[in-house]
Amino acid sequence: MATLSLKKIATTAPKTSNKDTTKLKTAALIKELQELQNVLMASATNSVLLVIQGLDASGKDGLVKNVLGSINPQGVTVKSFKAPTAEELRHDILWRIHKETPEKGMIKVFNRSHYEDILITRVHGWCDDATATKRIKAINDFENLLTQHGNTTIIKVYLHISQEEQHIRLKERMTDPTKMWKYNENDWKESELWSKYHIAYEDCITQTSAIPWHIIPADQNWYKENLVANLLVAALKKMDLKYPTIKTL
Amino acid sequence: MATLSLKKIATTAPKTSNKDTTKLKTAALIKELQELQNVLMASATNSVLLVIQGLDASGKDGLVKNVLGSINPQGVTVKSFKAPTAEELRHDILWRIHKETPEKGMIKVFNRSHYEDILITRVHGWCDDATATKRIKAINDFENLLTQHGNTTIIKVYLHISQEEQHIRLKERMTDPTKMWKYNENDWKESELWSKYHIAYEDCITQTSAIPWHIIPADQNWYKENLVANLLVAALKKMDLKYPTIKTL
Repeated sequence: MATLSLKKIATTAPKTSNKDTTKLKTAALIKELQELQNVLMASATNSVLLVIQGLDASGKDGLVKNVLGSINPQGVTVKSFKAPTAEELRHDILWRIHKETPEKGMIKVFNRSHYEDILITRVHGWCDDATATKRIKAINDFENLLTQHGNTTIIKVYLHISQEEQHIRLKERMTDPTKMWKYNENDWKESELWSKYHIAYEDCITQTSAIPWHIIPADQNWYKENLVANLLVAALKKMDLKYPTIKTL
Repeated sequence: MATLSLKKIATTAPKTSNKDTTKLKTAALIKELQELQNVLMASATNSVLLVIQGLDASGKDGLVKNVLGSINPQGVTVKSFKAPTAEELRHDILWRIHKETPEKGMIKVFNRSHYEDILITRVHGWCDDATATKRIKAINDFENLLTQHGNTTIIKVYLHISQEEQHIRLKERMTDPTKMWKYNENDWKESELWSKYHIAYEDCITQTSAIPWHIIPADQNWYKENLVANLLVAALKKMDLKYPTIKTL
């Protein structure tokens, strides 16, 4: 297997991409997504789980707001996973995750996810390699369960930013009054662990790609949003859903 | 692999077993269980999941009442799984199960369980063999998750009764005013599917025995209760739990 090296993957849009054209395309995609979501809700046979991972300030919240903020909120729910609560820690790692999986007809967004249990935990040494190996197996089994027994399409995206762009964004949080609420001094410390995070992500992405990961160049929001809107539309189209007809008496 | 034939397994206690002596032993076991449960709650590092399966009138409710009715209710919860609700059916088969798994320090009893999805469903043809095979894999993966990542000891018991004893009990439900609330005319119809249920159980037990099943002769309640009390005590002893000491300042 070719070794994944995040450092070698661009964090920016290709030179040929045009911002304005792309934004128009994204708007059209979101319109399409609205239609498709309606059929998803009406047919209620399938569900979508969008898993968003990425380092601090990689734009997870903005992605949720800008791509999923315009679809019917009755058919989409977002779950942000924080550090596990005391109750959650009294169960297996996937207990709190499984509860939140989407029901048929719904789109669910995980803003951070079960993957943190093999990412931040590994970087900080709270999870050793042997435990990580077992967790990876459990995660793969779990995603297989959702896919095969829940009719859930899982879309996994890793928002890939450069450290330079991250620093620009963290500084913005220190100066822009609308962003200060996101500022966390600890993010600077986490940023120093950059290459450790990359190693953890590389191993994670490599070992859990039975359901593929999409590495999304995320330095420019307009490009990132376009790619993820595309993924959502493609996944829903692939389901080939139909509106149920009226049942005749 | 030797083929399991339930028909060839006794549903009664061995002739050498004495009812009164056994009942005294069970009482002693329950006392021991009370002590062990206290350490389980205090240490809060492990949990127990007792899965009870068996045909109608095999004595599942009585087992819960008589073996688990005398331990601290703060440390034991019982979940009876009925036919799935509309909400549950909009998720994968294990969604409703996983939510109910025990937290550390607790004993959880499943009165019927995830196994119904490869038992009653197969007997009635709602689940074909290909689906059953996939479900069996998902169940094995799931139990592996609980064991490895939840520190849960799973004890699976199949209450094995004879059809004669079942008929005696069903008739009692028609005549004994304290048992009439359990009477369900449909149980007689289900009883006609006796050998189909045996085939489904034989396949189920054979294919999900990575975590072993215990086939409990269940025609006599005193014998059944003794065996299950024994299993619980043995499982808790094996954990080798200790009371935490006071943390010095």
